[in-house]
Amino acid sequence: MTERSSMAGATKADAQRERVLSASAQIFSKRGYRAASMNEIAAAVGLSKPTLYHYFRSKEEILVRLYENVMDHTVSSARAIAAAAPSPIDTLRELITYRVRYTCENQALHKLFFEEEAELPAAQLHTVRQRRSEFENILKTSVARHMAATGITLPTTPTVYVNTCLGAANWVYKWFDPHGGEDPQALGEHIAALVLHPLLHPAGPVDTGS
Amino acid sequence: MTERSSMAGATKADAQRERVLSASAQIFSKRGYRAASMNEIAAAVGLSKPTLYHYFRSKEEILVRLYENVMDHTVSSARAIAAAAPSPIDTLRELITYRVRYTCENQALHKLFFEEEAELPAAQLHTVRQRRSEFENILKTSVARHMAATGITLPTTPTVYVNTCLGAANWVYKWFDPHGGEDPQALGEHIAALVLHPLLHPAGPVDTGS
Repeated sequence: MTERSSMAGATKADAQRERVLSASAQIFSKRGYRAASMNEIAAAVGLSKPTLYHYFRSKEEILVRLYENVMDHTVSSARAIAAAAPSPIDTLRELITYRVRYTCENQALHKLFFEEEAELPAAQLHTVRQRRSEFENILKTSVARHMAATGITLPTTPTVYVNTCLGAANWVYKWFDPHGGEDPQALGEHIAALVLHPLLHPAGPVDTGS
Repeated sequence: MTERSSMAGATKADAQRERVLSASAQIFSKRGYRAASMNEIAAAVGLSKPTLYHYFRSKEEILVRLYENVMDHTVSSARAIAAAAPSPIDTLRELITYRVRYTCENQALHKLFFEEEAELPAAQLHTVRQRRSEFENILKTSVARHMAATGITLPTTPTVYVNTCLGAANWVYKWFDPHGGEDPQALGEHIAALVLHPLLHPAGPVDTGS
């Protein structure tokens, strides 16, 4: 086999794996991971069962790979944003916007990601949690740096604040309507503006509320 | 049977139903609704299977009742808060605080509530969605009234804003640690203060952020 044909083979296999992962995310999110079968996945992508098993040894391997993909995307995006943003508040704004956009654009994948964690084998669950901590620490560090630089304080701990921001952002997997005409990027910017408000516009001496 | 013993019988039956519902919420949230069985529920509450079936005709009936209970609690609390609160912003603050507290205090029930909706029969799913709309409309109306009374504007629609607030509040079902020493009421007040910030402290002419 020449190097060229070997590479073409690898590319085709990668494309097949991508198709299997994409179809599996849809199936798992619709019927639940446990209820789904390799038969169903094979039928959805038009592969024979032996061919499907050539790409993934088990349904569990597909689940693990889907979790890895979300964590790879999230952590590498977060690192890149934190490295490039001109200030901690820009890091926070871009990270929250990104998290909303990525979730809206991959809604089925995130339904799975947020709801099927208990189905992961223990070792992979541990890895997912470690990488999620790494992602959350980038947010917490940015909050602390912004507070230190501006003297602004929050009514709560950075951990509660970051979890509040992430809840607001992640919840779009439940309510975003892909046919509603809302742009995921614009939605992300709006949600970021809302949750970062306490860090940008601290309470003045005169309250307008009660 | 005297009226007294009949009432005592009803009370005992109600208590048994409560025990079954409480154990079922734990079991469904831990293993998933589909994977759970009536056998398992009967064993958890120490009832024979015929006795369990005397209280609930099916696993589905238990699921439906659990959803009804959450919606009853949520909608009736929201109505009472809206009727008693002195202003729309107080309604919002108390409602978000309540939603956090109730979720923290019933974490397994809310894991079920937020993740198993697809398992409901169509008619009950319709009812749950209608009642959730009623609850969300109380929030949206309060946002609109507060904006009209104060002249404060938001960078987004009331619907996106309310979904953002609810995401921040509801997400506690994932991260609240009942052994962490955090008080659900205080946590609710903190989350409410964070998400209501844009309605209470509008951006002044000078931004402290970028």
